[in-house]
Amino acid sequence: MTTKQFLLSTFFLLMAGWSTANAEDGSRLWLRLDNVSNPTTITGVKGTAMTELQTYWQGSPVVLKRQKGLAKDGYTIKSQGDKIVIAAANDAGLLYGAYHLLRLQQTGNTTTSLDISEKPFYDLRILNHWDNPDGTCERGFAGKSIFLNPNPERLKMYARANASVGINGTVLNNVNAKPEALSTASLEKAKSIADQLRPYGIRVYLSINFASPIKVGGLPTADPLDKKVVGWWKEKVNEIYKLIPDFGGFLVKANSEGEPGPQDFGRTHADGANMLAGVLKPHKGIVMWRAFVYAPQSPDRANQAYLEFMPLDGQFADNVIIQIKNGPVDFQPREPYSPLFTAMQKTQMMVEFQLTQEYLGAANHLVYLAPMWQEFFSFVKPSSLRAMAGVANIGDDINWCGHHFAQANWYAFGRAAWNPALTPKEIADEWLAQTFTDNPSFVSTVSQLMLDSREAAVSYMMPLGIHHIFAGVHHYGPEPWYSPKGLRADWTPPYYHKADAVGLGFNRTLTGSANVKQYPEALCQLYNDINTCPENLLTWFHHVPWNHKMKSGRTFWDELCHKYDDGVHETRRFLAMWDAMQSYVDAQRFSEVQRKLRIQTRDSEWWRDACLLYFQTFSHRPIPQDVEHPVHNLDEMMNFRIPISMYENPQCGYNK
Amino acid sequence: MTTKQFLLSTFFLLMAGWSTANAEDGSRLWLRLDNVSNPTTITGVKGTAMTELQTYWQGSPVVLKRQKGLAKDGYTIKSQGDKIVIAAANDAGLLYGAYHLLRLQQTGNTTTSLDISEKPFYDLRILNHWDNPDGTCERGFAGKSIFLNPNPERLKMYARANASVGINGTVLNNVNAKPEALSTASLEKAKSIADQLRPYGIRVYLSINFASPIKVGGLPTADPLDKKVVGWWKEKVNEIYKLIPDFGGFLVKANSEGEPGPQDFGRTHADGANMLAGVLKPHKGIVMWRAFVYAPQSPDRANQAYLEFMPLDGQFADNVIIQIKNGPVDFQPREPYSPLFTAMQKTQMMVEFQLTQEYLGAANHLVYLAPMWQEFFSFVKPSSLRAMAGVANIGDDINWCGHHFAQANWYAFGRAAWNPALTPKEIADEWLAQTFTDNPSFVSTVSQLMLDSREAAVSYMMPLGIHHIFAGVHHYGPEPWYSPKGLRADWTPPYYHKADAVGLGFNRTLTGSANVKQYPEALCQLYNDINTCPENLLTWFHHVPWNHKMKSGRTFWDELCHKYDDGVHETRRFLAMWDAMQSYVDAQRFSEVQRKLRIQTRDSEWWRDACLLYFQTFSHRPIPQDVEHPVHNLDEMMNFRIPISMYENPQCGYNK
Repeated sequence: MTTKQFLLSTFFLLMAGWSTANAEDGSRLWLRLDNVSNPTTITGVKGTAMTELQTYWQGSPVVLKRQKGLAKDGYTIKSQGDKIVIAAANDAGLLYGAYHLLRLQQTGNTTTSLDISEKPFYDLRILNHWDNPDGTCERGFAGKSIFLNPNPERLKMYARANASVGINGTVLNNVNAKPEALSTASLEKAKSIADQLRPYGIRVYLSINFASPIKVGGLPTADPLDKKVVGWWKEKVNEIYKLIPDFGGFLVKANSEGEPGPQDFGRTHADGANMLAGVLKPHKGIVMWRAFVYAPQSPDRANQAYLEFMPLDGQFADNVIIQIKNGPVDFQPREPYSPLFTAMQKTQMMVEFQLTQEYLGAANHLVYLAPMWQEFFSFVKPSSLRAMAGVANIGDDINWCGHHFAQANWYAFGRAAWNPALTPKEIADEWLAQTFTDNPSFVSTVSQLMLDSREAAVSYMMPLGIHHIFAGVHHYGPEPWYSPKGLRADWTPPYYHKADAVGLGFNRTLTGSANVKQYPEALCQLYNDINTCPENLLTWFHHVPWNHKMKSGRTFWDELCHKYDDGVHETRRFLAMWDAMQSYVDAQRFSEVQRKLRIQTRDSEWWRDACLLYFQTFSHRPIPQDVEHPVHNLDEMMNFRIPISMYENPQCGYNK
Repeated sequence: MTTKQFLLSTFFLLMAGWSTANAEDGSRLWLRLDNVSNPTTITGVKGTAMTELQTYWQGSPVVLKRQKGLAKDGYTIKSQGDKIVIAAANDAGLLYGAYHLLRLQQTGNTTTSLDISEKPFYDLRILNHWDNPDGTCERGFAGKSIFLNPNPERLKMYARANASVGINGTVLNNVNAKPEALSTASLEKAKSIADQLRPYGIRVYLSINFASPIKVGGLPTADPLDKKVVGWWKEKVNEIYKLIPDFGGFLVKANSEGEPGPQDFGRTHADGANMLAGVLKPHKGIVMWRAFVYAPQSPDRANQAYLEFMPLDGQFADNVIIQIKNGPVDFQPREPYSPLFTAMQKTQMMVEFQLTQEYLGAANHLVYLAPMWQEFFSFVKPSSLRAMAGVANIGDDINWCGHHFAQANWYAFGRAAWNPALTPKEIADEWLAQTFTDNPSFVSTVSQLMLDSREAAVSYMMPLGIHHIFAGVHHYGPEPWYSPKGLRADWTPPYYHKADAVGLGFNRTLTGSANVKQYPEALCQLYNDINTCPENLLTWFHHVPWNHKMKSGRTFWDELCHKYDDGVHETRRFLAMWDAMQSYVDAQRFSEVQRKLRIQTRDSEWWRDACLLYFQTFSHRPIPQDVEHPVHNLDEMMNFRIPISMYENPQCGYNK
């Protein structure tokens, strides 16, 4: 075959793929259900549950019935003779039961007699979209906002996907909220979306700009204790509820990263949150008030949320929930949990996880996040929280999330919010079986890949407690040296890694920023001592000397080199594992995932080389002979920047 | 240190390096001799030998004396009391003796009493420069021609370097010779160069265009049997010898790759060569007539030289030497030896090695060639040849050869032409000791790296007998698919690899092109049988089925994957070995070599990925799980071309 023949045949193969009606392009997510040609008899309560089963269910006849005494959104599924009975206290419960049944069908688990009883662990299972009015998605790596020009079919698929994993709320717009989010035109658009999501048990919420009374209402102030301000909010909230009777409430980012807030008027977070809560209360709406606050002058950003919110513990209204990121700084590959979670005793809290991979290779890296959440829940009891929020990784890309495997994080978020006791492996297994195939060889191999992926990412990006050494602004790739003149220090990596001739890391012990004191006493002691501090958090809490002896017997520097290199070897292993799965996967998704894994592997070498060569300028120590040596040049990496904004996924990293 | 501080300090370090008078920039090659402040007494024969010793020799007084009975260019060095006596039959011998002494000084071997007797194995030890009148060097990767605007200091260094390793001839211009090489202006320039090289025992030669009588002389023909043509050549040769009394002779590429030759006029190579030989004979000049011939219509290019030259065996004049490339196709990473060497019995032959790395990563890859020449000499007895030619890798780059380690190939060529029995290790050791340091740790490590480098290059470029799958035109990097429409087939890789659904390789057995028949019977039988053919030449001689069982027990396809991957791991090992040498090497050369080794490592991955993914489109077999999987995409590699000519070294390969 000549080159031309080869290229032509490749072209036609691709064309053949594209023109197939049911091409596996990821658009069907984990709901790869075909319409049944001979629908089963579905009787009982009419509604979405019935429609879904009529369209997709291939088993015995199903009876849908309402039953008092069951938990809100809970359900039972029982085989009764030749029928299956799904019972629930409300429509949403029936729908969740229907999806449970369809999940069993897709994972090949419908043979046994059914006796299932389920109820959600959290009442509120909420996606946070960071979507802007212009259609960009902050930290979105999968195209434009699905809410920009909502396509009814896509919106229905979005609703079905959410409902199938129990997600029952969605915040439509970015926490960095434009005041226009509350304009009448904007609210009418929200109403239209709410109407389309309602049949799937999903309520809509909005992020609001705290200065809206000024910017939208034309008032001279947004002081939460000002009566005219309160009046304006009442009127606005009435307007919303007239359009959206089941509107969920507000998500508020206030006095954070330049957003306005009650402190601008001499009031506290509690004053602001409680005012809005009061206005929403008659409508049964809630306020989710974010604790993501930090100030440029702070000697330790990790201390800030605690310092601002602990004094307010017990002062928040009963329909306010403080929404706290899982880590104290930001959504890093690994952080200790945010100490606010164990400190606040008289405040309703919810955790904010980030599904979109702002700090985990965007839509290019395969990083399955459930193990990270499991790690969080090993420190923070699920029962100490009221709810779970997940920053969505959804856009208008055909496959929704940019990376086929990023869909797993959306899926896992819903499942974990329904039941935090589900193991990451259980969730991965059922997602894989539905999304690709239930072949056990495939599921066991790829599930292992997924389970190992987060620790691998930590290794090649930020092992041993290193954090926030990402490229400026877009956060894709390494820039531990990033430090533009005049930029606030806490937006630059050197603020966090503090590399010098002595060592690496942020001293947060009692001799440093005393961040350890925000943790319960036992943890405080554990973290405070460099010899007992878990090594995976070592430079988070300590400025670790280059020659510090690690448990492996290696010096800290040598261990660092090994960790980075381990990460590279892990990505190579993943690639080989995936390549071995070719016969189980349709051509399009196989190839698209393979391309992403290749990017990830090349990126892991970039991370290793950039970080080791940069830190080596401080350590002045050789890279050990038993790890691979850098293949890129520090000066060239330092001169490289990906020309993207915070709204885009790069084509690739340092190397094509 | 901030980024800015870091960059500034790096800048100043570099500036400091640049401004140091004796910066180790590679310009001194292996002659890193400092002028002695207190010269030793050197007595006897005046000349270059005396000057060199007066300038650089730090030991006992030396007596230079002429002595009959010693071989041409040979010498003895003997300790006599507190003196050292160098004796030789001619000035060149004294000079070689002087450099021998200086080499001992540089390698730290001057303590013992000396009793050395040396003579060169070959009379003619000749560099071939492929330099064009416009200053470009064909397959030159180290800048422009040193002969374009010859700098007297550089030319002196060039002469010293050559003399120090016994090189005694240099062809000033490209074998693809422009007729203007014989213009009067050009000859006067050659005279000037000859005058500067003469004190160092180096004769100059010229490549000629066979059609010169037409193009320079204005004759209607260049028929070698035409009297006017012969007359024109006589006159031209007389003109040359008037300018350059010790002119060496002509190098001729005729009827090869479009160059004119005797066949254009119905004459044979012997007719052409003998005519020129006759004209040169009275002046003691010689003709080096190249056997590098092949025709586009040939079913096997490897057969061509033999087919054209064997019938002429015994017909060449006694001052004609047939110059044959070491392999039958071109200067590939591995070829069997050219069968002409063992077939021609009545013809003077010389081997043409290529020092410039046209097919070995140009000036970016560290590939030490002495092991390749040793392999050649294990098949072709050195005594069966009259001379050795090496295609120079020299340009006007500060370090002469582009890559510091490419200097070793220039050095090794001279040493091997002096004594083909020297082992690659002996040559590497003495080159390293002179060029860097005689520290035994350094020499033993880096010598091993050098010795392993050629086999590594074969592994990551063209293992198991694969050949000529290089990128079109510039020959840097892999393009096994290269096959532009209309291009003659033997200039495209598919002509050589013949990959198809069955397997890979060129059937040159008795059932194929019968190339094996050109070898002696024992080798013919060995090569003809796929089960006895050395595996490192397997696809050279056989179209090997993908499932052919190899000695390792693997299939051929799996073995191919392993070989490519071995090559990648070798380059990584070299990089780590070099990194460990930092304390032994000056900063500039350490860093420059490190950068090149990093390119080589990245290129080795490119080679592996491009070749395996391309061949996989034929084999349809998976890449084994125990080798690393490709990290680049075939379509992207196929769309990549380095925008360089055949006169340049690329900045890097596929990845920066």
